[in-house]
Amino acid sequence: LDPRWESLPPRIRARFPDTPRGRASAYEEFCFRVLDIVASQVAVVKPQSAFFEACGPTGLEALQNIMKRARHLGLMTILDAKRGDIASTATAYAEMAFHAFEADALTVNPYLGRDSIDPFLEISRKLGRGLFILVRTSNKGGREFQGLDVGGQPLYRRVGEAVEAWTREHLGEERFGDLGAVVGATCPAELAELRKLLPSTFFLVPGYGAQGGTAVDTAHAYRADGLGAVVNSSRGILFPAGADPERWEEAVERVTKTATAELAAAAQPRH
Amino acid sequence: LDPRWESLPPRIRARFPDTPRGRASAYEEFCFRVLDIVASQVAVVKPQSAFFEACGPTGLEALQNIMKRARHLGLMTILDAKRGDIASTATAYAEMAFHAFEADALTVNPYLGRDSIDPFLEISRKLGRGLFILVRTSNKGGREFQGLDVGGQPLYRRVGEAVEAWTREHLGEERFGDLGAVVGATCPAELAELRKLLPSTFFLVPGYGAQGGTAVDTAHAYRADGLGAVVNSSRGILFPAGADPERWEEAVERVTKTATAELAAAAQPRH
Repeated sequence: LDPRWESLPPRIRARFPDTPRGRASAYEEFCFRVLDIVASQVAVVKPQSAFFEACGPTGLEALQNIMKRARHLGLMTILDAKRGDIASTATAYAEMAFHAFEADALTVNPYLGRDSIDPFLEISRKLGRGLFILVRTSNKGGREFQGLDVGGQPLYRRVGEAVEAWTREHLGEERFGDLGAVVGATCPAELAELRKLLPSTFFLVPGYGAQGGTAVDTAHAYRADGLGAVVNSSRGILFPAGADPERWEEAVERVTKTATAELAAAAQPRH
Repeated sequence: LDPRWESLPPRIRARFPDTPRGRASAYEEFCFRVLDIVASQVAVVKPQSAFFEACGPTGLEALQNIMKRARHLGLMTILDAKRGDIASTATAYAEMAFHAFEADALTVNPYLGRDSIDPFLEISRKLGRGLFILVRTSNKGGREFQGLDVGGQPLYRRVGEAVEAWTREHLGEERFGDLGAVVGATCPAELAELRKLLPSTFFLVPGYGAQGGTAVDTAHAYRADGLGAVVNSSRGILFPAGADPERWEEAVERVTKTATAELAAAAQPRH
């Protein structure tokens, strides 16, 4: 759920002024409709905090309402906010995600190290929620620092192995832990490599669709048993290319069906 | 400005219910009073976004009011939000910081690489604002990834040198650019090393005071001309140890004077 004012269906945009409050209301209405359409076809939604924050306080109200609606529809929620800070500041971010927004999981940046993850874990483990740590992001420039060689392996692999060690502290069903890794579909070779190295780490896979990753690329994200990843599609679902703006809801429904079908085919167990 | 509910002066806490809205109102009142006390003694304030976000939408209203009040008092503002994301999502975070909150500068996480910094720069350069990139953070575990050896130097140095190259694209007064670096006072040797390597990069220095960094440690943050750093004190100013809770405003005023005096002494030019 990455609502962008410029990309909203004109019928929705026309009903709200182009002000922070107007945008927030339009985002809420748009996301509510999308949730109603996709709820029967997907398991998880991932609201992107930035677009709501850009609207100021009323944006967060819209985000709270959208998170609530998603839960009400039986969907799990990943709050994509890529937070990262230390000590009581990290605790405050965890309170934001898990109390103020009641997210099932939050995306977190690893640059500050394990002691910056602990305050998040303290709250997420108490509440039975999860974290997804950025490991290898889907942008072209992601390689700049993540790909640096550290002792014979790229930094993202070192971070990934740390995440695997941390998640094994708290294994649950199917031998998955409660810390996942963000690994882009735009780098399928790295996805395959990390899948082998991190068997207990659930993956959150951005980059499928508009960013260029294909369903076949996402196949590398799963273990041989066909489990282990949630694949994200944002623009591809929300703003289908070439759709008739007057019939955007039908287009969202259609592309969601196509995407889930091709992703499911790619996710078949290999034994 | 890191307001913590548990640490607020009891007189303020007693007047608000312990709810998200009550906490937000208490934070606003507390920070307003602190701003009035310190405005004549400091140049910059750095509100910590996390504590306001933990209160949900009303927390952001309080943060907006505090940022506005700070500007009105003639203070520069650094919004400490440590954001980092790609493409239009990064643009949305920049809109949050520079439009919704009108910050003079924003702290940003470098893990996603330069192309994740560009959308922030596009807006900050248009508006004449700045960014502080996390280079070497003040927490004990900051070394875990930031200290990894990449080609004979630690990762934080590699990131720092990238920031220096980026900031030189847009030099202003005193040969400083508009991208700064966050470097903790808790690692004075690294502070001295980075100061030498990054002559055009302004430093934001956390870790002085409650986290253990001394005024003498912060001396390494300045160039020989005595310029180049803004030193942050959070808990040390807001919640002075051993202060009479009934006379907390006097304590804040006293410790601010002591801190600015000892920091100024440490910042003397060396030629």
